[in-house]
Parts: sequence; C-alpha cells; structure tokens
Amino acid sequence: MNIKIILNKDTDIYKQIYSHFKEEILTKRFKVDEKLPSIRQIANKLKINNITVLKAYSLLEADGYIYKVKGSGSFVKNINLNNTCTLQKPILENFKNGQIKINSNINFASATPNKEIFPTEIFQNIISNLFLEDGSDLFIYEDSQGNLDLRKNIANLLKKEIKNISHKEIQIINGAQQGLDLLKKGIIKNNSTIILGSPTYSSAITTFSNFCKIKTVPVQADGFDMETLEDILKSKKIDYVYVMTNFQSPTGYKWSDDKKIKLLNLAEEYSFYIIEDDCLSELYYHDIPTSSIKSMDFMDKVFYINTFSKVIMPGLRLGYLIPPKKFISSIINSKFISDISSCSLSQRSLNVFLENHYEEHLLKIRSFYKQKYELVKSLIFKSKFLKLDYLPEGGFYFWVSVLNDLNCDLLYMKFKERGVNVLPGNVFFYKKTSSNKIRISFAAVSEDEIILGFRIIEETIHEIIHGGENIYTPLI
Amino acid sequence: MNIKIILNKDTDIYKQIYSHFKEEILTKRFKVDEKLPSIRQIANKLKINNITVLKAYSLLEADGYIYKVKGSGSFVKNINLNNTCTLQKPILENFKNGQIKINSNINFASATPNKEIFPTEIFQNIISNLFLEDGSDLFIYEDSQGNLDLRKNIANLLKKEIKNISHKEIQIINGAQQGLDLLKKGIIKNNSTIILGSPTYSSAITTFSNFCKIKTVPVQADGFDMETLEDILKSKKIDYVYVMTNFQSPTGYKWSDDKKIKLLNLAEEYSFYIIEDDCLSELYYHDIPTSSIKSMDFMDKVFYINTFSKVIMPGLRLGYLIPPKKFISSIINSKFISDISSCSLSQRSLNVFLENHYEEHLLKIRSFYKQKYELVKSLIFKSKFLKLDYLPEGGFYFWVSVLNDLNCDLLYMKFKERGVNVLPGNVFFYKKTSSNKIRISFAAVSEDEIILGFRIIEETIHEIIHGGENIYTPLI
Repeated sequence: MNIKIILNKDTDIYKQIYSHFKEEILTKRFKVDEKLPSIRQIANKLKINNITVLKAYSLLEADGYIYKVKGSGSFVKNINLNNTCTLQKPILENFKNGQIKINSNINFASATPNKEIFPTEIFQNIISNLFLEDGSDLFIYEDSQGNLDLRKNIANLLKKEIKNISHKEIQIINGAQQGLDLLKKGIIKNNSTIILGSPTYSSAITTFSNFCKIKTVPVQADGFDMETLEDILKSKKIDYVYVMTNFQSPTGYKWSDDKKIKLLNLAEEYSFYIIEDDCLSELYYHDIPTSSIKSMDFMDKVFYINTFSKVIMPGLRLGYLIPPKKFISSIINSKFISDISSCSLSQRSLNVFLENHYEEHLLKIRSFYKQKYELVKSLIFKSKFLKLDYLPEGGFYFWVSVLNDLNCDLLYMKFKERGVNVLPGNVFFYKKTSSNKIRISFAAVSEDEIILGFRIIEETIHEIIHGGENIYTPLI
Repeated sequence: MNIKIILNKDTDIYKQIYSHFKEEILTKRFKVDEKLPSIRQIANKLKINNITVLKAYSLLEADGYIYKVKGSGSFVKNINLNNTCTLQKPILENFKNGQIKINSNINFASATPNKEIFPTEIFQNIISNLFLEDGSDLFIYEDSQGNLDLRKNIANLLKKEIKNISHKEIQIINGAQQGLDLLKKGIIKNNSTIILGSPTYSSAITTFSNFCKIKTVPVQADGFDMETLEDILKSKKIDYVYVMTNFQSPTGYKWSDDKKIKLLNLAEEYSFYIIEDDCLSELYYHDIPTSSIKSMDFMDKVFYINTFSKVIMPGLRLGYLIPPKKFISSIINSKFISDISSCSLSQRSLNVFLENHYEEHLLKIRSFYKQKYELVKSLIFKSKFLKLDYLPEGGFYFWVSVLNDLNCDLLYMKFKERGVNVLPGNVFFYKKTSSNKIRISFAAVSEDEIILGFRIIEETIHEIIHGGENIYTPLI
C-alpha cells in the first residue's frame, strides 16, 4: 500500500490527515470495508501525537467516511450519498454571500445570472417614477395573490401560448422555490408519491424528501424514459410528476412535443398532476423552444411555475405559479400563511418593466449568454478530460462527464481548493449514486473567468490522474 | 313566533331568505335544535316558489347553520366555530386589495399601519443613493440568512436589551408570518404539542392547526393564567408555548416580568421552547414596556420573532427571527428551501434607515398613533353599547365587549353591510366559542374615519337591539 500525504504549516495537521483520507476514500484508492492504518502507525510515521490522528479519524467517522469496530480498528464505509444534508451542502456553500462570488473564486456552480447584464438603470428610472406616482402605496401589503396589474401583464405575455389565460389564475411568488414550497404547503399531502427525473433540479429533491415518497425515472434528451414511467404508473398510485420542460437542470435536456402530450394523457389516465418548472425557456440560443405542457393542458392537470430570477434579476424575488383552476384559492391561502404577500415595490416595478422593456431585454440577454455558451462549448470540445454527451440548445448548464470515471465529489473538492466552483453530479440524484458528472453553469461567470476556470479544471484533473510533481511525501 | 324578513328587488330572493335565517340563528332568536318553518310554509307566505326556499335552506345546511332530519324538517345546528377556514375568511377578506381599503370601507379590522405615516420620502432618498453606491448588487440573491450589514445593525439595536447578541444568531425573514412558517418547516415536528393563549393571534391558530396538537391557556392582563398552564404541563408533554409579550392581539395585554421569569423557569423544568412574538413592543403610549422574554433567556429556550411591518412599513416584507443558538443552521436551511433569500433592495434600504432614521421615526409614530389611541379610547368610553375590560398601554388593538351579548359574527356581518370592518372575536379562539367580543384596530384608519366608524357602529347595534323603522315585513 502506498499512501501519501501533503504536510504543510498553514493548516492544522489533523485537517490534513482528514483531507488525505477523505480523498483516498472518494477516489476509491481505499475500497469499501478496507481497514485503515492504525492511529499509532500514522502517529509514529508522521512523528505526531496520537490525539491528532484520533481527531482526524473522529471527524472522518462523524462525516460518514469510516466506521470503527471495537478492538479491530477503522474501516472504509460504503458512502451513502442519498442524504439530503450532504447533498445540499455544496449548494448552500455556493449561496453564501449572494451566490455571486465566493471570495475570489470562479463560480461555475451558480445559476444566478451575471449582474453585468442586469437592467439596473432601467429599474432605477422605473422606481424613481414609481415614487412620484404611487408614493406610499409602494410600501403597503399587496393582495396575497399579487398585484393586479402585474398579474394582468403576465397573463397578457402568456396569451400567445396559453389560450384564455386570466390574471385570476395567476399567483405571484417569491421565485420558483416558493412555488414548490406553496404546493407542498397547500396542495401536496404528506406521504403522497411524486416522480422526479433522474437526475433533476437539486432543490426539488430537497423540497420533497422526507415529505413525499419519491420515485425516479431516467431522463433522456427529449424527456422522461416513458417506458419506465408507465411501468411505475401501472404498479403504483402516483400523485405528482415533477418536470423541467426546457433546458433542464442539470442536463440541459428539453422535452419533445410527443412526450409532453404523452405525459398529459398519462396524467388523465392515471389521475396524477404535473408540476412543470419552466424557468429557463426564454434563454434559447437556437430555435425557439417548444411550448410548455401547460399550453396543451385542456384537462387542467398542470401546476406551472416560472420565475423572473434567471431572465431579469433574482433580487426582484418574483415569479408566478399557475395551478389548475380549482386550486387557486388554496394556493392564495398558502401564500398568505407563508409570508402574507410579495414585496410591493418589486411587483410594481416589474410590472412597468414587463410592459415597456421585456421583449428588448430578452433579445439582449439571449445574445449576451449565447456568447458565453459558445465559449464554454468550444472549451469542453477542446478539453482532454471532459466529455459532453448532449449539446443543450439553451439555458445555463453543461452536463459534463469526466474521463477516467473520477468521482464528482472529489472533483468538487479539488476544484474548490483551487478556487473553481462546480456542482458535483451527485447533488442531482435522489438515489444513491456515484457519478463522474459535474454541472458547469456559465450564468454568473465572465468570459475571462471561463477561460481561466477551464485551465484550472484541466490542470487539476491532470494532476489527479497523473499525480503532482514531488509535492507528495510518502506516508506509509 | 315573530319572524321578519326584508324583501327587496336588488338581491336574489333565496339569498335574502338565507341571510334572514342566518341572522336569526346567530342572534339566537332561533335556539339550537329548534325547528325551522317548513319550506312550504315560507313559500306560501312569501308567494314564491318552493325551489327558491329549498335553495336557501340548502345553502344554510352547506354553511353549517342547520341540519335536516328526513321526514321531520330542518333544525338549528349547534354552530361549530372551531373551523380554520371559517376563521380565516374575514381575515382574508380584509387582506384583499392590500388590506388598506376595502372599497370605500372604514377598516377597523386591519393591523396594517396607516400609510400617511410611512417614511416614504426617506426611503426614496435612500434607494436613490443605493442605486449610485450598490448598483446591480441591489438585485442579486442575498445570503439566505440575510444581508450581513442589516443583521449587524439589528444586533446593534438589540444590544441594549439582549446581552451578547450577535448577527450570527439572526435570520432575516419576510415579516413575522414567515417566522412562524420557518419554525413550522424546520423546527417543529408534526404532531408536536403547542400551547396558545385563549384568545390569541389568529394566524398563529391557522399556522399550527392541522399540524400540531393545540392546547389553550386563558390569557390575563399580565400574561397566561399560570395555574392552568402548570396543570397542563404536569399532565402532558408540551413542546412549544407561543406568546405575544406586548400589546397582544387581540387583547392588548402585556406580560409582567414575574410571569415571564416564571414561564422561562417552567420551560427549563418541563423542557419546552417558547415562541415569543414581539412585533408591537415599540408602539407604547405610556411607559416603556417591560423587556422581552428573550432578553432574560440565559437557558436558550426562546425563539424570538419581530417585524418591521408595523413600526416602519409592511411593504418592506422584513422582520427577523432569533432562535436558540443551536437551531440557527436549521433555520437558514428552512429559509433557503422557502424562497432562497429576502429581497436585497428592501434589506439594504432598511439597513440605511435603521442606522440613520429609526430612533426619530419611532418617536414620530408613537405620537401619531397615540392621538388615534386616545380618540378611540374616548369613543369607547362614550359608547352606549361597547365596554372595555382592559385599557391597553400600547399597540393597535382594543378588545371590546358588546352589550346584550350580541354574537360577534352577526356584528361583523352587520357592520360590514354598512361599510365598517372589524374582526369578530371568534377568529382569535382556537376552541369553539361564541363570543360577544370584537377587535377594533386603529392602525389603518384616519381620525375622520374613526369618528364616522363609531357612529355607524352605534347606530347598527342600536338597530339590532331595538329593530329598524318599519323596514321589516312580518313573515310568519
């Protein structure tokens, strides 16, 4: 056995030992149930105190990497990745400090739009006019369902696609996440069964875990694997199916019309509801994407969620939810007991923006992001270690395989040490998995950062595979 | 039996019959289990179709006022007021259109501060400066826990009262209601047992109903009835106790220091947590109110909730939650899965306001509301029909008894018909009750409206008790 460890003066020694073994385990250089060196062996070898090693081993145990057998020593645990807390950790870390910058890191993890392209000046003018026109009304409680003019404006924008849509069917929410939250609170019963894609949006997993029974269906480039879906429907009562129709997180996949119609028909046949999360459909860089499932929903089977966080600015904290008609009053009630109503100033300024600036803004951001999209695409194609199985036609995400089947948690950790943040593939799977996938988002990064970030990624993977240049000293 | 009915051309006849009997039942002119006239009797008397009367009776049955016995007729039901949906109805109605004005009504129901006193111009300047200083940062996602400067500023304001408070313990929320929601989502387990005051804040009842087991303890002018509380604690495991420390809704009661200390000691002895809702303590019109329970909380037993909705403006949608230290990470997680973070623009502008304008603003609103407080007080003292058992020392609420034990639901309905909104006492009780209390809030109304509103209230009660002038035609 050839174990190596880095020793430096800047970090606590126990933390170095911890990181070393964590890495060995994640890269499978230690196998499941393999015995680790004894505490004394390591302490002797490194000429350090037993207590220091004990501290490292205790931390490894607490974090679920090893287990102790009394009298026998410590062994590598079969890491259970199906744990929401662990799943969420890298995401929450990336949300610290506003999800834009993590210290001076390059953030390929964030799905937050780049603030360079925010229509800040337009909002400055809108808000300054609103103060003159609306005065103190900007700070009242709005109707729990949302500002009437804003709902009318949204209905108007949707009319092209969703026939006969009325503002009475629309609930204003604080972004897509609150849409899921209101459904959970007002509609979905505890222990209902919900189907999620595999992989899928990580916050959907977090929202429904420990509340619903979850079944998963593999996702394909044109939607769910319908055969697996039908098999599940035949064998079990399903209450909800959650889908992201366009440029799904993390894969970038979009649903074909055939599969959308098929899903609607199944919803009718097997009496389930569809939760359609459609927050990226305006960000297309090729053809206009196909219509939403909601636009075909003549049987009132779809809860439709959309947000302005990605296409305008997340700080507005605004999106909308369109439930099947009979559920709107439950949803309003749900909003009321959540936080009474959304911010009036945000709603009123968004209303003016939608009326006068939205179409132009969409053209602008499409061209802005397309440039970055092309850059990332070309860098992945050039990469020695990254592989793309599917080229998305829009959105923010590239779902990338790393050669040599390197574990994504290790990659996440190693990239992060060098100031590059990605999301490890594991956070997008409900079921225990060990993925070699990472999600690279170009939402928040500049072109310079993209170029530098890819260089670091390449170097890091190279080092993991080929080893560094004499920076390691052999331990045992 | 002398039943009278109004007949007019503007309203559907079945609705008139419905309203008539509903009123008779609520005013107890029909007793529980008393038989109603048969459908045919009424139809003959009024020279209308049987179907019309049937429609009215069906609606009465659906709304829970009467029950049918096959072959015998219809009887007055023992009205079950313990129903959250019914409870919430008048409150939700009052929230329509921003809770400020309901058409041209006088709104004694609303606890929304009067927008006359909003510091709108100050915020206009603050926001305009923020655009220059922070630019597009105003529209990013803030940290889920809340903007760092804002948390530091709040900690600073609290330091006088809560020793050693740190910004690390503070979670920013979208108003007090979201505080309760986050607790429910991240801390309180389903089927926990919680104690509420009787009466208490209606949204606390709504939030915890159908989720927790609820026990109630009578409230007294200086806090809970501690004997009843101790009896419950001795016989049952209690997980949480919810209290409003100062100027409670609906009573205006405030807790004495003795009872606060007692409650804390009981929390330690019986291992429960206290949820302290303290959103009105800055609105005192006599002495400075006593300290919060949180300020005495050396055993880390208190979840403290406060909001800027009442003292600054509700449209900011901002408040804060301070949990016992060990729960802060669960609370942050809870916020993240609710709506990721609160609005950046609101948080940053509040931050500047707290630093430079808050103290002065508080002086201003105290004197503004004190004037209305004195006016309402004098009008209640002059009233022939209203009685005050307790004179609050601050806040927005007078908890008023109506003479002749008139049912509060009837009063709510009758006042509303004449354009005056109050909240019926029943919405503040978890347990079935039939109250003659109404809550009169002077938060949203002007002095003119207060004077006119009280005149209408007096006239309406007079008419209910003494009857109108020949506007009734005898029915049977």
